[in-house]
Amino acid sequence: MPLTVQHGPSFRTIQEWLHEDLERVEARMREIPLAFEPLKTAVDHLLTAGGKRIRPLLVLLTGRLYRPTDEAMVSLAAAVEMLHTATLVHDDLIDGSLLRRGVPTLNAIWTPAATVLTGDYLFAYAASLAARTENVRVMAIFARTLMTICEGELHQQFGDREAMMSRQDYLRRIYAKTAAMFELATEAAAVLAQAPEPEVEALRQYGVDLGMAFQIMDDVLDFTGEVRALGKPIGNDLRQGLVTLPTLFYLEEHPDDPLILQILGGGSRDDGMIEEAVRRIRNSGAIARSVAEAEAFVRRSRAHLQGLPDGPAWHALWSLGDHVLRRDR
Amino acid sequence: MPLTVQHGPSFRTIQEWLHEDLERVEARMREIPLAFEPLKTAVDHLLTAGGKRIRPLLVLLTGRLYRPTDEAMVSLAAAVEMLHTATLVHDDLIDGSLLRRGVPTLNAIWTPAATVLTGDYLFAYAASLAARTENVRVMAIFARTLMTICEGELHQQFGDREAMMSRQDYLRRIYAKTAAMFELATEAAAVLAQAPEPEVEALRQYGVDLGMAFQIMDDVLDFTGEVRALGKPIGNDLRQGLVTLPTLFYLEEHPDDPLILQILGGGSRDDGMIEEAVRRIRNSGAIARSVAEAEAFVRRSRAHLQGLPDGPAWHALWSLGDHVLRRDR
Repeated sequence: MPLTVQHGPSFRTIQEWLHEDLERVEARMREIPLAFEPLKTAVDHLLTAGGKRIRPLLVLLTGRLYRPTDEAMVSLAAAVEMLHTATLVHDDLIDGSLLRRGVPTLNAIWTPAATVLTGDYLFAYAASLAARTENVRVMAIFARTLMTICEGELHQQFGDREAMMSRQDYLRRIYAKTAAMFELATEAAAVLAQAPEPEVEALRQYGVDLGMAFQIMDDVLDFTGEVRALGKPIGNDLRQGLVTLPTLFYLEEHPDDPLILQILGGGSRDDGMIEEAVRRIRNSGAIARSVAEAEAFVRRSRAHLQGLPDGPAWHALWSLGDHVLRRDR
Repeated sequence: MPLTVQHGPSFRTIQEWLHEDLERVEARMREIPLAFEPLKTAVDHLLTAGGKRIRPLLVLLTGRLYRPTDEAMVSLAAAVEMLHTATLVHDDLIDGSLLRRGVPTLNAIWTPAATVLTGDYLFAYAASLAARTENVRVMAIFARTLMTICEGELHQQFGDREAMMSRQDYLRRIYAKTAAMFELATEAAAVLAQAPEPEVEALRQYGVDLGMAFQIMDDVLDFTGEVRALGKPIGNDLRQGLVTLPTLFYLEEHPDDPLILQILGGGSRDDGMIEEAVRRIRNSGAIARSVAEAEAFVRRSRAHLQGLPDGPAWHALWSLGDHVLRRDR
């Protein structure tokens, strides 16, 4: 229970430590059966463009609190990342995004029909990987998570714009969008590792809180990031009329800013307007307040780790919060 | 093993016999948690417009070969129908269809984004219903089926047009499109009912063959049906440049018909051309040959029933073939 530890291993150190596990996860993801050549190319493209694999890391670290990584845990880690990848494919279609992680989205190079079907195929493969855990409860958590994500996205796309201007609504949205998947990773891994029930619950909550911090920082980066680091244009959320925490905090200080209100009101928005709005929000106190909120979630996530089995996996989970809070991740 | 029985119960008699089971399935499908009002309306609309529920019937009848219908079997029947409904939602988006079963599709009344997300949500609910069977093998069959369906659809949308002109390719396509879901219904139900392994295999094959017959008749109806009975315009497949069995048989007799070749070659096709093409194929021997092919699949499906437990469920499964072959279903 070393809550006094202030500096855990770096993200790179964790990745190096779990290098072999991660390779197994990567290989499991690529076992996807693809007889149809264009689909194979598209999926290769998606997997190669893949991110930092933080969700599989969460699975592996949670599992390693209790036991060495076995085949079922590798399948779970691959299933979670595959589910994440599938949701990205449909998200890019829904948002009309043309770039993700700096490379063209499927949506940009294929038809909507192909994009829908490829996403569905990846959902199916994620489900089949989850089935390889041979754990019914894990599969139920999977299905529940996908429902949460879809309902959240529908709400974001079609919900009452007025209601979205509240912090409560924002937190609900980022839970569905991001934290639910982190929750899936830690809860399902704890179940699979046969952790005692109170520890399953603690790890579930750890996942939720870390995921909330992760998404808040993602939303901050949409204002402060470099195009290069982000792999997508800055001000993307505003461009889509999406209210995130920095904008909410900014509006608390400047409730009548006509530029921001026009952008969010669905009026015309050109690139110059978006740039100016990003500048105003970036130069306000809203960014620091948002980061403070993310830090608070990281602190809460760490509190849930109290009393869990000590060891390198524990320290890695503890230090993941630092990675999440880093602006240049 | 009464292979001498020539006339089993009618479809209506089977529906009446299983009325209570089917009500339970319907109720299970409607337990879908829908906090978001527009999604609730859309899903109500989909379930109310629902078809004859032949897939849940296959689950229930297969189960009843071995035991009374229990909660797990009800969940499985609901899961299969929900998976079918989800694929229809995405299909209508992909095809740009505006009518299904005589009512507007989601695609016609909603945006593509809403349609994608609603389909995803239904996939997730189908998976969560499948998880309620608490049977890992059933869930693996589920995932495998969805992969088969998606890959088949991708192949149909983006495969080599030339290669699609073969009967072998047609059979592969209708397996993925329809027979795989019938296979899921009977195989998963047999697994859940703890049927002996050879009987699981026989019922799986029964499902495949019945599904093949079902889709061939569906393709015949696209030429011979009434708009009213079909709930969608006649000649729909040709209009989409889709080669089905009647067209393949027609082309064997008239390999150089310029009208058909132009339509399938992706040239311009107006309603008059489609009508004329439908008339030519309907008046040729291609329809009778296609029906004969469907009849052959029904005969094969019945052969798989040999040696399975006798009783009312057996007779109902036997007679389902007659229903599938009826032109006005």
